[in-house]
Amino acid sequence: MSQYDVLCIGNAIVDIIAQCNEPFLVENKIIKGAMNLIDAERAELLYSRMGPAIEASGGSAGNTAAGIASFGGRAAFFGKVSSDQLGDIYYHDIRAQGVAFDTKPLAGEPPTARSMIFVTPDGERSMNTYLGACVELGPEDVEEEKAQGAKVTYFEGYLWDPPRAKEAIRLTAQHAHAAGREVSMTLSDAFCVDRYRDEFLDLMRSGIVDIVFANSREIKSLYRTEDFETALNLIRRDCKLAAVTRSEKGSVIVRGDETVPIKAIPVHEIVDTTGAGDLYAAGFLHGYTTGRSLQDCGDLGSLAAGLVIQQIGPRPRQNLKEEARKVGLL
Amino acid sequence: MSQYDVLCIGNAIVDIIAQCNEPFLVENKIIKGAMNLIDAERAELLYSRMGPAIEASGGSAGNTAAGIASFGGRAAFFGKVSSDQLGDIYYHDIRAQGVAFDTKPLAGEPPTARSMIFVTPDGERSMNTYLGACVELGPEDVEEEKAQGAKVTYFEGYLWDPPRAKEAIRLTAQHAHAAGREVSMTLSDAFCVDRYRDEFLDLMRSGIVDIVFANSREIKSLYRTEDFETALNLIRRDCKLAAVTRSEKGSVIVRGDETVPIKAIPVHEIVDTTGAGDLYAAGFLHGYTTGRSLQDCGDLGSLAAGLVIQQIGPRPRQNLKEEARKVGLL
Repeated sequence: MSQYDVLCIGNAIVDIIAQCNEPFLVENKIIKGAMNLIDAERAELLYSRMGPAIEASGGSAGNTAAGIASFGGRAAFFGKVSSDQLGDIYYHDIRAQGVAFDTKPLAGEPPTARSMIFVTPDGERSMNTYLGACVELGPEDVEEEKAQGAKVTYFEGYLWDPPRAKEAIRLTAQHAHAAGREVSMTLSDAFCVDRYRDEFLDLMRSGIVDIVFANSREIKSLYRTEDFETALNLIRRDCKLAAVTRSEKGSVIVRGDETVPIKAIPVHEIVDTTGAGDLYAAGFLHGYTTGRSLQDCGDLGSLAAGLVIQQIGPRPRQNLKEEARKVGLL
Repeated sequence: MSQYDVLCIGNAIVDIIAQCNEPFLVENKIIKGAMNLIDAERAELLYSRMGPAIEASGGSAGNTAAGIASFGGRAAFFGKVSSDQLGDIYYHDIRAQGVAFDTKPLAGEPPTARSMIFVTPDGERSMNTYLGACVELGPEDVEEEKAQGAKVTYFEGYLWDPPRAKEAIRLTAQHAHAAGREVSMTLSDAFCVDRYRDEFLDLMRSGIVDIVFANSREIKSLYRTEDFETALNLIRRDCKLAAVTRSEKGSVIVRGDETVPIKAIPVHEIVDTTGAGDLYAAGFLHGYTTGRSLQDCGDLGSLAAGLVIQQIGPRPRQNLKEEARKVGLL
């Protein structure tokens, strides 16, 4: 029997979230809707210009792990924080959600990663991430038992930004596949895809990655096309299974020649889109690792994504298992 | 001309906010609705039992200062943090709101104060405060120019918990009164009143405090009576002006024989009552220091309090000046 449903691997980041208006993004050269990588100096500058904020544990794959646990799934996480107050917060929150998290924290500098997230009135989030301690994640952080014991390993494309995390991913994938498990990834961000297009395609085509999560901008970036259908038909051939989100249009799941369109849930007001893709993956993977149909997997993803965008912060405050039961999905 | 409208003095605390159910409070011996003081060991224990949380700058008088600035008032703050990540967050948030905050941070231990706030399904908050660096606030932190230059000084009764903050208050009040200014306080918490009843009464009766903010539980505790009207008639004699909040019943302002009843604003859903009293004081003091009628002062207080309880966290995300304009109060 498997020890975990999903092992998630990602940058362990505390989000610092504030509202801003559209001109602020332009004036500060922040690419809207994207993950902008920043160094310590720019982090200080942007923070000095940021309005009053709140803090919440985040990080793409960390959010997914928290979401899976909230659905009642068994989740584990690999990620690197430092031994500081933000690191304590990160440890607390993910463990309090029921996720197994045992990666050894850094003893000193650099500090725990933070992402300054500016939310515009339309609810779109623009992230500015200082990677901090995340740059130290490496193959020595791979816990073999968890890699072998999880039905699916899930990692974020963002891990190609720090220098050695990709080695951890390749090692984890070896353990997972040797144990007959599956490996999945999210393409993370259209600009991230642009930075690592060939490597991401190689991960898929070489079979290191079985399942791909992406949004429409990311697959269009991956295949350098403006046409969604073209990109969708290309990704069919490059991985076993792909789930592609399309904001209010819902999502599309493709597996070989099979195509499963999924609706978004009705949303009262988009407050903050942070975590939407992460929570879609959480719902999908919870369904997938508990043997549900692709339709159910997609609906669970839509539910979790739809809930998280109606609140501030990247991890839903609701118990997702209860929410799924309310609408008859579990 | 005055340099500031209001100088606020209080414990500089970062809130760690999570939801819990009613049995959790009982099992962990947390007094519901109160500020429970805890030491470092109990802080660690409670944190280990707390669910996933979010962090936000808080502290009673700090919230009031932020509220005044959000109304467009000129606010200053005295409070002690440490030179750590939570201290950086505290500095950032209050300054980003436009509050003048220059108290020198501690170089080392103890760390910045935090309050673990458990919010029950009814929206009530139960606070568990580790005072940390706040215990080091003392008369050496009084900035004479700000004390003399603010129309009203406002401090929290909670400052009687750390050892030397009361000396800072007495010194500030001397400077303020010598410059012809007024001094106000909040009674903070019914249990805090119980701890320092005689000292609080002495502050009022000796004229160190001119204006008192309290809720109905606090004035009943102050005068050891179960009857609200009795307590209200006693506080009339003990200070020049008092504003007493009564949750959904609104508030009552008394000045000598004058009595001004104030309505609460309609509230859609009580999400988290944290900051309600602090924001009432913010609205009131903004009105008061800009020469408005007691009715207007109370209505501004009701507005700010009513807004903050409809969100998570102790400082409203809205711009309070804009909100007040929308309803014709400014």
